[in-house]
Amino acid sequence: MGKGRLEAFSDGVLAIIITIMVLELNIPHGFDLAALVPMLPVLASYVLSFIYVGIYWNNHHHLLALAKRLTGGQMWANMHLLFWLSLVPFTTAWAGESHMETGPAVAYGVVMLMAGLAYKLLQHLIVSDSPDRADLERVLGRDLKGVVSLVLYAGALAAAFVAPLVAYGLYAAVALMWVVPDKRVERIFEFLNR
Amino acid sequence: MGKGRLEAFSDGVLAIIITIMVLELNIPHGFDLAALVPMLPVLASYVLSFIYVGIYWNNHHHLLALAKRLTGGQMWANMHLLFWLSLVPFTTAWAGESHMETGPAVAYGVVMLMAGLAYKLLQHLIVSDSPDRADLERVLGRDLKGVVSLVLYAGALAAAFVAPLVAYGLYAAVALMWVVPDKRVERIFEFLNR
Amino acid sequence: MGKGRLEAFSDGVLAIIITIMVLELNIPHGFDLAALVPMLPVLASYVLSFIYVGIYWNNHHHLLALAKRLTGGQMWANMHLLFWLSLVPFTTAWAGESHMETGPAVAYGVVMLMAGLAYKLLQHLIVSDSPDRADLERVLGRDLKGVVSLVLYAGALAAAFVAPLVAYGLYAAVALMWVVPDKRVERIFEFLNR
Amino acid sequence: MGKGRLEAFSDGVLAIIITIMVLELNIPHGFDLAALVPMLPVLASYVLSFIYVGIYWNNHHHLLALAKRLTGGQMWANMHLLFWLSLVPFTTAWAGESHMETGPAVAYGVVMLMAGLAYKLLQHLIVSDSPDRADLERVLGRDLKGVVSLVLYAGALAAAFVAPLVAYGLYAAVALMWVVPDKRVERIFEFLNR
Repeated sequence: MGKGRLEAFSDGVLAIIITIMVLELNIPHGFDLAALVPMLPVLASYVLSFIYVGIYWNNHHHLLALAKRLTGGQMWANMHLLFWLSLVPFTTAWAGESHMETGPAVAYGVVMLMAGLAYKLLQHLIVSDSPDRADLERVLGRDLKGVVSLVLYAGALAAAFVAPLVAYGLYAAVALMWVVPDKRVERIFEFLNR
Repeated sequence: MGKGRLEAFSDGVLAIIITIMVLELNIPHGFDLAALVPMLPVLASYVLSFIYVGIYWNNHHHLLALAKRLTGGQMWANMHLLFWLSLVPFTTAWAGESHMETGPAVAYGVVMLMAGLAYKLLQHLIVSDSPDRADLERVLGRDLKGVVSLVLYAGALAAAFVAPLVAYGLYAAVALMWVVPDKRVERIFEFLNR
Repeated sequence: MGKGRLEAFSDGVLAIIITIMVLELNIPHGFDLAALVPMLPVLASYVLSFIYVGIYWNNHHHLLALAKRLTGGQMWANMHLLFWLSLVPFTTAWAGESHMETGPAVAYGVVMLMAGLAYKLLQHLIVSDSPDRADLERVLGRDLKGVVSLVLYAGALAAAFVAPLVAYGLYAAVALMWVVPDKRVERIFEFLNR
Repeated sequence: MGKGRLEAFSDGVLAIIITIMVLELNIPHGFDLAALVPMLPVLASYVLSFIYVGIYWNNHHHLLALAKRLTGGQMWANMHLLFWLSLVPFTTAWAGESHMETGPAVAYGVVMLMAGLAYKLLQHLIVSDSPDRADLERVLGRDLKGVVSLVLYAGALAAAFVAPLVAYGLYAAVALMWVVPDKRVERIFEFLNR
């Protein structure tokens, strides 16, 4: 099956996820600049989640570019990834309203961990079904960033029960790690332009 | 008429339907993990509806891939299908807020039944207008799953008046039936790649 | 300029307009089927507006298919049309909450009238800038439906001040007129496939 | 990397931004036409922001048409632009609810200024990475409009602290300046059709 519509549908879902989070930014109580101060945690969680969805879009874009054609299993693995990402506006809003309590810090991490695992699964299916399997494995490398992310999410989940601030710090650290450009993206670009 | 824009528009509508349901997930009352417990019915209805819209997107994708060009009647049959699916966020939210009452269980089933009938109609129009009609009829087979779904929806509707839990169980059973891969999808892939 | 992105952007906006209207359908007060009865006006206005946006998508699809390339003026005429259509969820929600009062009936009609005029303007610009101008004029004909619609909107606006029910009847009549297939669509299809 | 999905994703985000602003238009308190009068500031801010997002879509469309292929840095510069634009529904709603207070007038301007800078950065990256760099520099010219816009935003921000009405007047003036067609768009069209 061609992958055009799956990309278009995923782009639509990711575009909606990244944009409707702004609907959770309620108008401040008051009309001076000081009224924005109590909103800082909400704005911070908005920025973090915006960056995360941006990272997923970027990585999804590269990953699908590597796929030649798609199987039914890959389509469902993609839907599974979108499911976990669709919960991001919910966990973002809960985290934004909270003041470093455990619940939202755990929920945010569970969604991130599950989205990370769903992405790994989709990547595995795309690589293992590809006629260029060996090439793709070389291009994607050991996926150190992906593995480290999952470990940090797990650590953040443990931290969320005792020190939610540490958990949020780890979520931010993972995001930062992905925004920094790396060799893998260069290898993907080279492979696609070969 | 080319089908590109109809697919793009349908992808957009389905992407929005599947994503805005998250806006119905209100933030829990409280910030510990226990605050999520009363949300379990809402989350369960969210998961079920997410899977349903995913199934419709998958099937719609395959069906439109079979169509060569589209008539005005097919465009309206597609819009009719999107209308019923557009009500899913409403029935999902009502079901999620309820505690096994009749109203939401019936409404959920009526929307599913009508969406199922709308899909059958669109499929019929695409097959009967196709220059490859005989091929498409062979590829799609007797559509046993489609017929069984409609029967189960009807049964669930009857059950909703006496035992809503049975109705929801039947809705989940239909969803499960469609997620499991089948021969038909393989035949469609073979036909498209012939 | 190519028209691909203008179609994609318009599809996105129309898909969102037609879908977010469901967010205005608040959950009924109660969980039996009778709780749906007070929602009938809201549901009726939802159905009417869904059909209207569907008609605009259909017509927009055909009209853009006739355009070869787009000018800056046509892009702004298209944005102007989308502006008026973007107000449909607002007037639909206001009409749905009302009980045949004047305000929503007038607002609904003003938005429909302005959207109709915006469409006429876009159509005029596309036809007059086309290298196939004479062909397009023949294919589109005298646009009797378009003119009658504008007249009926104007009549409905007058009626809204004394008998809102008549106004809504006229809005429904215009919608019905467009859903019924006509010779023009056939001529457009023939022209595009020539 | 191909630019198709980046355009599709950006179209999706911009389409959602321009459309969900209507969800901030709450139904008037009352059902006569006079109930619309208190909504005039909200409607005015809606119109202004609709035009702004329309301008950004138009300019983004032209700019991306000039790009041949995209780098990782350009993708993040594009995401950065979308981030600031995603805040437009929030600042629009806050401005619409206010009565010429300082806070919303400043917030509106900050978002516009940052979006303008983000656009400049994206434009710079696309031009400087292009194999046709000299051509693109000639086609885009000195970008007088872009520079004047940033200066007017800065002036509006200063004015917002003493006379918010002047700030809004300047925001409207910048929008008007971009809607008026200019030589640059003609040069872009010529370059793309060369």
